Amino acid sequence: MQLLEERILKDGKLFPGNILKVDSFLNHQMDIGLLNEIGKEFHRLFADDGVNKILTIESSGIGIACIAAQYFNCPVLFAKKTKTKNIASSVFKTQVKSFTHGTTYDVIVSKEFLHKTDRILIIDDFLAEGNALLGLIDICRQAGAEVIGCGIAVEKAFQPGSSRIREKGVRVESLAVITSMDGGEIKFERK
Amino acid sequence: MQLLEERILKDGKLFPGNILKVDSFLNHQMDIGLLNEIGKEFHRLFADDGVNKILTIESSGIGIACIAAQYFNCPVLFAKKTKTKNIASSVFKTQVKSFTHGTTYDVIVSKEFLHKTDRILIIDDFLAEGNALLGLIDICRQAGAEVIGCGIAVEKAFQPGSSRIREKGVRVESLAVITSMDGGEIKFERK
Repeated sequence: MQLLEERILKDGKLFPGNILKVDSFLNHQMDIGLLNEIGKEFHRLFADDGVNKILTIESSGIGIACIAAQYFNCPVLFAKKTKTKNIASSVFKTQVKSFTHGTTYDVIVSKEFLHKTDRILIIDDFLAEGNALLGLIDICRQAGAEVIGCGIAVEKAFQPGSSRIREKGVRVESLAVITSMDGGEIKFERK
Repeated sequence: MQLLEERILKDGKLFPGNILKVDSFLNHQMDIGLLNEIGKEFHRLFADDGVNKILTIESSGIGIACIAAQYFNCPVLFAKKTKTKNIASSVFKTQVKSFTHGTTYDVIVSKEFLHKTDRILIIDDFLAEGNALLGLIDICRQAGAEVIGCGIAVEKAFQPGSSRIREKGVRVESLAVITSMDGGEIKFERK
């Protein structure tokens, strides 16, 4: 998606350790016009797949998911990160390892809102290691819900996330696919 | 706002200790059609106030803020909760006490995205004790930004939050104002 790639080149900031910050327009401050274009593009890609619910994970996926949901005319469900030990039996639960922090946290979704009749589009802002998305796929499978695919704003293709998700048989559509950030230069996949 | 009150009566769930759960439509699963009506109403209330940015706090305010921002044609900034000890000097920071958990956490916003020229509408899903909103107001004042007001979906008027915010000279507009939940019956303020 050219608009997103151009914005990353213009306003993204690179830091040592292959860290790309896009917090001026995507995941701290959010450009709602851009989010609308992202939402439209997800809809173009998944319009014919009978999506009836969008699933994301707090926090930075929520804005993109809500704006996108307007094009699918469906509700959004966001998974919650928790450190509470005593989780109610009324939730689906999975464990997600944080690559950044080196810790593991529980992710939960109420059983009330995820069913085996659901056709789920998972949306998130970033895909790198893929741990959060694999957790969301696990939760959907616990519920017996069908995962239609994953819609991602920015993918770091030099990290293994998208391969790990496709190995699960899940379609991944990333709107900006970064193949390299070596030497401070961001390169995108040319399709 | 009649639509929201009706929805609370229909789908809200009361639990002991004056706990109202609205997680089927507002803050776990989100009804995007309802969020659009909420966003329109916030715009009706604050349309003439020159709002140029919406500020909220993760996680459950983000969806409402992003949908509302479409009517204001402005970006959304969400404050982050953190337990990291070494906070960079590049952020505004405040402390918020969690009434539910009895703990205190830090809330941060990057200095890059909040300026003294900003006219901020603060949006959140719930107002009870008001601690999170007071934290956001404090952050705006650190930045020298003007707080135009607070737009709240559901206010528990029998808790002190809205009084505490109005004492700071800040306008509060709550779309559903609950005056009592005694005996399992939800009563709304009649204006």
